[in-house]
Amino acid sequence: MRASIIGSGNVATHLAKALHQAQVEIHGIWSHQFENAVLLAKQVGAKAVRQISEIIQDESDIVLISVKDDAIAEVAAQLRNYRGIVAHTSGAIALNALSGNANYGVFYPLQTFSKHKNLDFSQVPLCLEANTNQNLQQLKMLAALLSNSVFEVDTEQRKILHLAAVFACNFPNYLYGVAQQLLAQHQLDFDIIRPLIAETAQKVQTALPIEMQTGPAIRNDQQTLKKHEDLLKGHADWLTIYKLLSEQIKKNR
Amino acid sequence: MRASIIGSGNVATHLAKALHQAQVEIHGIWSHQFENAVLLAKQVGAKAVRQISEIIQDESDIVLISVKDDAIAEVAAQLRNYRGIVAHTSGAIALNALSGNANYGVFYPLQTFSKHKNLDFSQVPLCLEANTNQNLQQLKMLAALLSNSVFEVDTEQRKILHLAAVFACNFPNYLYGVAQQLLAQHQLDFDIIRPLIAETAQKVQTALPIEMQTGPAIRNDQQTLKKHEDLLKGHADWLTIYKLLSEQIKKNR
Repeated sequence: MRASIIGSGNVATHLAKALHQAQVEIHGIWSHQFENAVLLAKQVGAKAVRQISEIIQDESDIVLISVKDDAIAEVAAQLRNYRGIVAHTSGAIALNALSGNANYGVFYPLQTFSKHKNLDFSQVPLCLEANTNQNLQQLKMLAALLSNSVFEVDTEQRKILHLAAVFACNFPNYLYGVAQQLLAQHQLDFDIIRPLIAETAQKVQTALPIEMQTGPAIRNDQQTLKKHEDLLKGHADWLTIYKLLSEQIKKNR
Repeated sequence: MRASIIGSGNVATHLAKALHQAQVEIHGIWSHQFENAVLLAKQVGAKAVRQISEIIQDESDIVLISVKDDAIAEVAAQLRNYRGIVAHTSGAIALNALSGNANYGVFYPLQTFSKHKNLDFSQVPLCLEANTNQNLQQLKMLAALLSNSVFEVDTEQRKILHLAAVFACNFPNYLYGVAQQLLAQHQLDFDIIRPLIAETAQKVQTALPIEMQTGPAIRNDQQTLKKHEDLLKGHADWLTIYKLLSEQIKKNR
């Protein structure tokens, strides 16, 4: 299979590198900022193009659209005459946002990507959807080259996954940040708490989180809850979060 | 050094095993439930004792009190004539809760322990405090046998650590549980989201969380926030959490 790529952000970059590593030929790369397309193309043996229309003639089998959600429809519209599969990589956009095209699908990697952090793409869950079974099979073939973790996920399920990812990733990271600030305010190094964060995530790799809940709220340890609330007296926002999440955990007892 | 242990819960068990592995001789083990002391003692070549007073004569250099916070003072009172160091392992209890004893300290492992899950104790941060410099040196010697990560932490700092651990461990785990339930309600396997959880925790092992924040709130992506809130319409509690944490993340922009 031969692929082209629209976009040069975190997801586009990680996908392009993973494709390159899997020896999938990458033809054109287009980015809103041509210089970024050039930079990425260099790394993966591809050609940066100045116009999306150039992708149409490039004989690739699939074009992956990895741009901001708002821009997907507009990019897809410019690919109307593309003969391969047009697939976006977004968790939040419906399959039928591409329905103006003949062959289309979704190729959603459920992971948090940072440009300068490598990660093992073979462990990245790829969530696939397509307008025909034949196109789905094509996406599956491509996905299998990149990852050991491939799922068929329809648009409604994908919306839920995208929401769940906020609870499983964005919100925990915010709470790590609260811990970071609490420690810094008391001359404690963030290193002290890093192993705890790692182990908490590690535990749920084989068990289910609801069964692994620990801490004062699940024990209904009123004394500790009270002590913690007292410590948070000067931080109204954090106190609100502490109370709300503790109440929720108590409800699960 | 020779140690004795009061308690047979998660922390006592992991500590006892780590001490045993480090070839620290374990003398007596006492537990509220004698049978539990017997079970643990068997695994670490120690002797289960029926009375705390038997620990006093057992010639150990340190007794580690790993019982529920409420019970620490009472146990310590029964160890008044112990000649070694009496140390508790709690994050929430002050050093001076043991001040009725001659030699005392705190030996707090900042980690989440589950009885049936092994973990590499050499990576567990040990937070130490003692009533004299000599006792602190003793605790440091013992700690160095178990872990590569040893910190001096006073009572006020330890309280903050204990609170920060709720934000870094208990609350994230609760949020993983929300993700778990969202997925289950839509016939999605929790496996899909496990790599995301692992990577989110992995990222902050070398970076600081505030710099790693991703998601719709930090981008102030109103459309996605609105979509997510709509999906949560049937879950008032989760919607409240979603709104509160998203607002907080937006404040950090």
